[in-house]
Amino acid sequence: MNEQLFKQLTQAKQASRHMMTMNTQSKNQALIKIAQALKDHVLEIINENQKDIEHAKASGMSDAMVDRLLLNEDRIVAMADDVLKLVSLDDPVGDIIREIKRPNGLLIKQVRVPIGIFGIIYESRPNVTVDIACLCIKSGNVCVLKGGKEAMHSNRILTKLMREAIKETLPVDCVQLIDYGGREMVDELIHAYGYVDVVVPRGGAGLIQHVVQNATVPVIETGAGNCHLYIDKEADLKKAIDITVNAKIQRPSVCNAIETILVHQDIAGTYLPLLYEAFHERVDIRGDSKVQKIIPCQLATLTDYATEYDDYIVAVKIVDSLQEAIEHIYQYSTKHSEAIITENQDTAHMFLNSIDSACVYHNASTRFSDGGQFGFGAELGISTQKLHARGPLGLFEMTSYQYKIYGQGQVRE
Amino acid sequence: MNEQLFKQLTQAKQASRHMMTMNTQSKNQALIKIAQALKDHVLEIINENQKDIEHAKASGMSDAMVDRLLLNEDRIVAMADDVLKLVSLDDPVGDIIREIKRPNGLLIKQVRVPIGIFGIIYESRPNVTVDIACLCIKSGNVCVLKGGKEAMHSNRILTKLMREAIKETLPVDCVQLIDYGGREMVDELIHAYGYVDVVVPRGGAGLIQHVVQNATVPVIETGAGNCHLYIDKEADLKKAIDITVNAKIQRPSVCNAIETILVHQDIAGTYLPLLYEAFHERVDIRGDSKVQKIIPCQLATLTDYATEYDDYIVAVKIVDSLQEAIEHIYQYSTKHSEAIITENQDTAHMFLNSIDSACVYHNASTRFSDGGQFGFGAELGISTQKLHARGPLGLFEMTSYQYKIYGQGQVRE
Repeated sequence: MNEQLFKQLTQAKQASRHMMTMNTQSKNQALIKIAQALKDHVLEIINENQKDIEHAKASGMSDAMVDRLLLNEDRIVAMADDVLKLVSLDDPVGDIIREIKRPNGLLIKQVRVPIGIFGIIYESRPNVTVDIACLCIKSGNVCVLKGGKEAMHSNRILTKLMREAIKETLPVDCVQLIDYGGREMVDELIHAYGYVDVVVPRGGAGLIQHVVQNATVPVIETGAGNCHLYIDKEADLKKAIDITVNAKIQRPSVCNAIETILVHQDIAGTYLPLLYEAFHERVDIRGDSKVQKIIPCQLATLTDYATEYDDYIVAVKIVDSLQEAIEHIYQYSTKHSEAIITENQDTAHMFLNSIDSACVYHNASTRFSDGGQFGFGAELGISTQKLHARGPLGLFEMTSYQYKIYGQGQVRE
Repeated sequence: MNEQLFKQLTQAKQASRHMMTMNTQSKNQALIKIAQALKDHVLEIINENQKDIEHAKASGMSDAMVDRLLLNEDRIVAMADDVLKLVSLDDPVGDIIREIKRPNGLLIKQVRVPIGIFGIIYESRPNVTVDIACLCIKSGNVCVLKGGKEAMHSNRILTKLMREAIKETLPVDCVQLIDYGGREMVDELIHAYGYVDVVVPRGGAGLIQHVVQNATVPVIETGAGNCHLYIDKEADLKKAIDITVNAKIQRPSVCNAIETILVHQDIAGTYLPLLYEAFHERVDIRGDSKVQKIIPCQLATLTDYATEYDDYIVAVKIVDSLQEAIEHIYQYSTKHSEAIITENQDTAHMFLNSIDSACVYHNASTRFSDGGQFGFGAELGISTQKLHARGPLGLFEMTSYQYKIYGQGQVRE
């Protein structure tokens, strides 16, 4: 292992042992101090961020990407306010999940505990540095952050300010930044079995697949969202159009936006013209040959159905039954979020019970798949795997549990 | 991917979709039929098992190992009875974990669902084939079993009987055996990302490490148990000795037996002679130099502290404080089970809050770390990792969850 990483992970381990026993008050105090430090050092943060921005512009980064990287006063204050929101959230650590009294008198308590050390691999947006560090602090975990090179100066100053802010309240080493080396440090981190308890890749499909294929540390996969909307023959057309527009273009770049619309053939003739009217100037529609007979659009390919556009593009397919819609989703879904629009409760029931995705909606937009919208207050990401946690990862999902067993001398027969 | 495996995993996927929607009654009926089939075919099973036994003997397998492989009438009936015990256990599938009503009227139900497809890699004992298949059936999962070559004939007949028994009730492909190829099939299975939802290696440390280091499919680690018993200065001596004897030699070959005893220096002079009396003819004691001054024993090395003997051997170390005991455990524990013997509640509290293992005991034997002993009825193994599930893996721990969200046309602002 890289020597510097080894040193940091050893410090992280020590910090983790202390974090496990920190009470809610100390963790909240640390969060309040971090928020204050961010507000107190706006200019310093902007100065450091400017170095990243200049470098990004010089290297020809697109305007959209430069904007993702940018920190200004408003964004820094918003970041600090988000930290303060964590203070009022329930601390899951110490919660008793189950209490079992055995016939032999043993009392078994299943108690929520922090997981330990999170390795987070992410790109661009420097606010992620603060978001994740503070989620980890509140849940009693330690974070080892591997941000993108493009945000190096911003991540450094943010980490420095956070560590200084918490130093009298928590072990400073609970926030660690890997600010050296290149892509090879990602590989070091995902192979740090025994040091890191879980790695969470936050980024594009390439990064996620690289981590899944190579990590020896357990992984939580987040964010791949090829989401589907099925318009049933018994759909309410107004709900159908409102939800389609919201799920596709309220914010197309995010993982809970829809990518494919499946339309029952019996309603296609009325729904598709309304869709075309709502979309045609804003969204590139790609339909199958049956769709093309109703509205003008490009022909959709199989690749379209498999693509998470995250953009103003949508694939549309006409299906002859609920079953065909379910089969299509089964084949192409990334198991993130899917929705059905129908007034028929039995059809809705069948859909919700047949779709194996983290979130399945009846008559609502897939855009609600979000920690904030679920009432979790904040989130680490949206899990698309089945082990450990599915869907929005809030503070609860960032914990594990332990059995504490109380006896009076019991031995096993 | 191996062609035959690809075929089986494709069938497994189809079976999994049906298993997800099977009701408790169908699953229980299948279990009852399996139990009956085992009892009805005792001779056939014994005949097939004899082929494995003869082959094992001819290849020079030790008597103890041959015994692990052996199936006789008693064992087959016991196996069938274990299957019947699963019938009365609660089916976790469909349980509503949480219900969240949002201010916008959305109703979010967090519902327990099967995980999907379990890949299980195990050795020797053919009863595991039936245990695991039936746990998977009851929890709505599909199993793909990769048993050891030494039990091939036994595993084949058991799988055949189970598939025949369930065929009118459940999709037969929910029980799959990989009965071809050698060790390379283990590697195929642990790389079947997208086909298998989780792999569980059940076997020695070598197998577990191989799977952890190489799998792309998520892994649940089970069974590594370097467990510790700490005898505090305020221990009740009778409890201390009873629990030591039980935790070490009631069944030394299992993962929840203790391997190291840590003794506070203030009680070593009275405890160790009693330990010696209880153990000296049955257990090979390896102590540090301070222990050697009190009782005759071999000198313990650092390797001893790191070893899971699973045998009539124990390492003993004298510590000068609770803190030293905690540090030792922190360094050597596999995070399975540890216990403290003390009458001081504060000391117990400190120990239970500082030890980061799946199960931590106060005044009870570590031998209780077991699904049956916890009241779970049966178990897949004991997890020593922190993601997903820790400690005994019962039916609940073999499930995931899904969010079902009910709206009336809600869109995101």
